[in-house]
Amino acid sequence: MRISLIGSGNVATHLALAFYECGHVVDQVWSRNIDHANLLASRVEAQPIDDLRKLLGNADVYVLAIPDDALFDLAGDLRLGNALVVHTSGATSIQVLKHCSTRYGVLWAPQSFVRDAKMDYGELPFCIEGSDPKAEEDIAVLAGTVSTHIYHTTHQQRQWLHLSAVLVNNFTNGLYALAQQLCREQQLPFEILYPIIQTTARKAQWGDVRYQLTGPAVRNDRKTIDAHRRLLANDQQALEVYDLMTQLIQRIKHG
Amino acid sequence: MRISLIGSGNVATHLALAFYECGHVVDQVWSRNIDHANLLASRVEAQPIDDLRKLLGNADVYVLAIPDDALFDLAGDLRLGNALVVHTSGATSIQVLKHCSTRYGVLWAPQSFVRDAKMDYGELPFCIEGSDPKAEEDIAVLAGTVSTHIYHTTHQQRQWLHLSAVLVNNFTNGLYALAQQLCREQQLPFEILYPIIQTTARKAQWGDVRYQLTGPAVRNDRKTIDAHRRLLANDQQALEVYDLMTQLIQRIKHG
Repeated sequence: MRISLIGSGNVATHLALAFYECGHVVDQVWSRNIDHANLLASRVEAQPIDDLRKLLGNADVYVLAIPDDALFDLAGDLRLGNALVVHTSGATSIQVLKHCSTRYGVLWAPQSFVRDAKMDYGELPFCIEGSDPKAEEDIAVLAGTVSTHIYHTTHQQRQWLHLSAVLVNNFTNGLYALAQQLCREQQLPFEILYPIIQTTARKAQWGDVRYQLTGPAVRNDRKTIDAHRRLLANDQQALEVYDLMTQLIQRIKHG
Repeated sequence: MRISLIGSGNVATHLALAFYECGHVVDQVWSRNIDHANLLASRVEAQPIDDLRKLLGNADVYVLAIPDDALFDLAGDLRLGNALVVHTSGATSIQVLKHCSTRYGVLWAPQSFVRDAKMDYGELPFCIEGSDPKAEEDIAVLAGTVSTHIYHTTHQQRQWLHLSAVLVNNFTNGLYALAQQLCREQQLPFEILYPIIQTTARKAQWGDVRYQLTGPAVRNDRKTIDAHRRLLANDQQALEVYDLMTQLIQRIKHG
């Protein structure tokens, strides 16, 4: 297929590379900043542009891989006839694209992209939704050239999945960062915890996570819980996190 | 060395296997339940016992790998002369062992052990502390036969590290479990999130986690945060977790 990318950030970069590596033609890459457009376009043999009026109408698919706010601004002005237009946002309804084309949808990969890190695109999960069954099928075919992990999800499901991704990615990162700060304050190398972090993540793939809950919260080991609470006595916010996560774990275990 | 294990749970099992595979002699394995003692002893060519009075005095090291409460109970009665005695608890002072022997300490591996899972013991981190420099050195030598990741940590450091391990293991698991519950309620396979869980854990090894914080909290993207809060409106506890983790991330990012 002939694909044009609107955007040049982490998501746009990895999707463009994934399509390019799968043999698709990446036609144009748009960015507000021509240097950014250039950088990505040169990696996928595409034409860089910084003016949407230069967008040619001959691509099969237009992929809008831009932040949510920009998506709302930009989609209002874009008119792409009958081409397939998709956005890549976990949180946004496909209706934002309804004036852009007669055929539109979403191609969202719930993954944490880092621009310069190599990725195995065949492992990428794609959550898709189309404005009509044919559009959804076309998006599935496109996604299917990259990965076999295609999920047809409604807007409601995608919203919950986006929230769930925030829990397991952003919030988990928040816990890592807090632990790293505590280790730093105690002159402890954070690397001591690398193995347990990796094991914990691997075990999330073992089925029902409820049955893998361990530690003082699940055992309601008050002595250890109180010892931890005393350590955090001078950090009200961290103490609240400790108490609330302890309660959450006890609820999930017994729920 | 000649090593006897007091305990037959996850930690005792993996330590016994680690010592055995490194060529140490595992002398005796004690458990309150002789079947449990048998099970482990048969894997490391040791003698199973269920009575501490049958403990022979000829081991070089006695490893008490039992729950914290049992450790307090049991250590009060154990008299092992001048043999090296260690416990394996992250949360407990080595002073609990002061009546057991003239030489004692701790050999704590901050890892999440699963009894029947194969492990690469060479990657195990060991946090050690001894009652005197010679005892600590002997514990370092023993740990060093298993792994090269040996950390000399004070009791205070170990307490903070134990708390940090709860954050990155138990609490992270709590977030996984909550996300899994939300996915289940929405008929979404949790496997969609496996890749982002693994990526997030891998990125924890990339240096300062503060700089890897992403998502609506860090961007203070009120629109997405409010959308997530509306989804959680009927679950007060999950909503509190959401708000508190969002605040924590914002503090860490700007702190």
